[in-house]
Amino acid sequence: MKLNGNFQNLEQSYLFVTIAKKVNEFTEKHPDNQLIRMGIGDVTLPLAPVVIEAMHKATDEMAKKETFRGYSPDSNGYPFLREAIAGYYQSLGVDVEAEEIFVGDGAKSDVGNIVDIFDDANTVLVPDPVYPVYVDTNIMSGREIVYADANMENGFLPMPKADHPADIIYICSPNNPTGAVYNREQLQAWVDYALDQKAVILFDSAYESFVSPGLPRSIFEIPGAEKCAIEFCSLSKTAGFTGMRCGYTVIKKELCFDGVSVAALWQRRQGSKFNGVNYITQRAAEAVFTPEGIKQTRDAVAYYKRNAGVMVDALRELGYWFTGGENSPYVWFKCPDNMGGWEYFDYLLNEKQIVGTPGEGFGKNGAGCMRLSAFGDAEKTKEAMERIKKG
Amino acid sequence: MKLNGNFQNLEQSYLFVTIAKKVNEFTEKHPDNQLIRMGIGDVTLPLAPVVIEAMHKATDEMAKKETFRGYSPDSNGYPFLREAIAGYYQSLGVDVEAEEIFVGDGAKSDVGNIVDIFDDANTVLVPDPVYPVYVDTNIMSGREIVYADANMENGFLPMPKADHPADIIYICSPNNPTGAVYNREQLQAWVDYALDQKAVILFDSAYESFVSPGLPRSIFEIPGAEKCAIEFCSLSKTAGFTGMRCGYTVIKKELCFDGVSVAALWQRRQGSKFNGVNYITQRAAEAVFTPEGIKQTRDAVAYYKRNAGVMVDALRELGYWFTGGENSPYVWFKCPDNMGGWEYFDYLLNEKQIVGTPGEGFGKNGAGCMRLSAFGDAEKTKEAMERIKKG
Repeated sequence: MKLNGNFQNLEQSYLFVTIAKKVNEFTEKHPDNQLIRMGIGDVTLPLAPVVIEAMHKATDEMAKKETFRGYSPDSNGYPFLREAIAGYYQSLGVDVEAEEIFVGDGAKSDVGNIVDIFDDANTVLVPDPVYPVYVDTNIMSGREIVYADANMENGFLPMPKADHPADIIYICSPNNPTGAVYNREQLQAWVDYALDQKAVILFDSAYESFVSPGLPRSIFEIPGAEKCAIEFCSLSKTAGFTGMRCGYTVIKKELCFDGVSVAALWQRRQGSKFNGVNYITQRAAEAVFTPEGIKQTRDAVAYYKRNAGVMVDALRELGYWFTGGENSPYVWFKCPDNMGGWEYFDYLLNEKQIVGTPGEGFGKNGAGCMRLSAFGDAEKTKEAMERIKKG
Repeated sequence: MKLNGNFQNLEQSYLFVTIAKKVNEFTEKHPDNQLIRMGIGDVTLPLAPVVIEAMHKATDEMAKKETFRGYSPDSNGYPFLREAIAGYYQSLGVDVEAEEIFVGDGAKSDVGNIVDIFDDANTVLVPDPVYPVYVDTNIMSGREIVYADANMENGFLPMPKADHPADIIYICSPNNPTGAVYNREQLQAWVDYALDQKAVILFDSAYESFVSPGLPRSIFEIPGAEKCAIEFCSLSKTAGFTGMRCGYTVIKKELCFDGVSVAALWQRRQGSKFNGVNYITQRAAEAVFTPEGIKQTRDAVAYYKRNAGVMVDALRELGYWFTGGENSPYVWFKCPDNMGGWEYFDYLLNEKQIVGTPGEGFGKNGAGCMRLSAFGDAEKTKEAMERIKKG
């Protein structure tokens, strides 16, 4: 028996472990601390009332023989939820049908598992810095990875280049960790490039609910994307579902390679390795897409966006170079005084009692940058930015 | 971009599609039918009261900022659940620690995803007939598959043979579809064989709650298994969680290949491609392992076992060769008059208004056999067996 040797090529992920260790040391030394945590990208507001109501109702259904639900009729989600999500796309002016939507337990699972349907010999293009899952899941499969450099010069929004011969292209917009968002023309350039290269775009739109009108929320707003892209979305940030686990993947009927339907392969993959999302969660997700659900969940997004606004205002006042924050819960900025990310992390922790995430954790181009999350409490976010402004 | 070509080697799974088609045709022709469905292995009793209570409570926690839960601290499950499962193992006399338990969203996901951590060059040994997921997930990875013939001669419990050189060995006990259960000596022979071959056993114990005292419920009751086996278990059948989605995988610290910890690889795989099980479901699962939860869920298992007993009595009376039913919700029997499985399926549907699953759907050695499920209503199960007995 041989284990998958590719796992030995993974870099040990010390980022959040190291952060946790440093924070623990600090809180032990300062038990009466006023720590403000802006590190991890996890929501803090409770679920919307309409969602809670749907969960209680679904739970009661599971308590009676007449209304009990066992296996989903389909591992890709109940029709009521797939239709609700299709309706949401239609409200954005995007043509997506219920059968093109595959409900899963979160964007991380779907983005990770999608690699099963691709040949290991494909070359993968990943922006740097980026959410580490894209890189790690491809290392596990032994694929060659090339990087698209994101940096201050391109506003952390790299564009296709002649020296980027890639078969599988990851795009995350709004980006994690930088919060930068591609506009329509930029995404069109990526779609044209993918069509030309016969590549597939894996478009992670987990943060789409933070996007302001005028910028694209879905890759399928871009003509041609139906023939080259797969979209991954999630209710984690849209509706505070990080502990609930529900996302969806969109594969249009038009997406084929060598005459083989990509949707059919994903369906087969999920049919063999997945048994559908928890029924209560599917009912909760359905509630998110009702008019009342949209209103309530967008109120929470607006709360986080106000936090991001406070952060952006402070950074502007300080004159720090930054991106994100306007269409994203993340603000990404260059550390002052040419400090490295870890150096500035230690400074913020020890001098300001603020926890951030050093850019070094997301790739070599993240060096000297810091990510702060807007998912915290409004008063604490204001307080944190006041502390930073005091210098 | 090349798709994974191994998917083209999958056989189209016509089994449940064909069954659904035949049943639809029948019900259209006979709208006033008295159909009894004993085909699909899905539970029908509602969730236990103690589980429902835990779900309402957890839902209320998600409604308040002070008690809201976002991401699990660990993709492998909250400590409260891992400790509850460890306690269950200890009650069976099996030494498993909380850190050796990896909570997932069901045995199907874990059994399917575990192949990620193995090299594609391994040879896989799978019993025939068997649950199709083992075969399909390995075809997707391009592994060579050899079969261990299960048949009437060996009671559908194949034992290791010299001509079974395998690196990865799948064992499902109680078996799906046959309901046959290995005893301690037989499992010891498999463990000894795996240790000798330096192979890994993937032990699917999804139906362990149906096992009567005296027979093993866990591979870790067998000395040496800690060094060669991974166990997959599920609350789907134990607690009616088919629509809830919660299972667990057990990898002992001792399990290493070439000095690499298998648990560490699985943890890394899950950390990159999974974000933990829904919080409400984890609280529901915790409730299953309370004394009250064990009592209530075992009452449901006893109900299904009484159904299986009715089925077994009828088959014994008819003199049909059968296995399963005593430690399993499935009864597997040879079709009368040397009928093929599909032929007998048509006969049961058209003449007896009963839906079964023809053995042909589970591998070549399933030909001429039929699986009936005990997960239905008690009165309907009795009625079905009366109809069959009437000949």
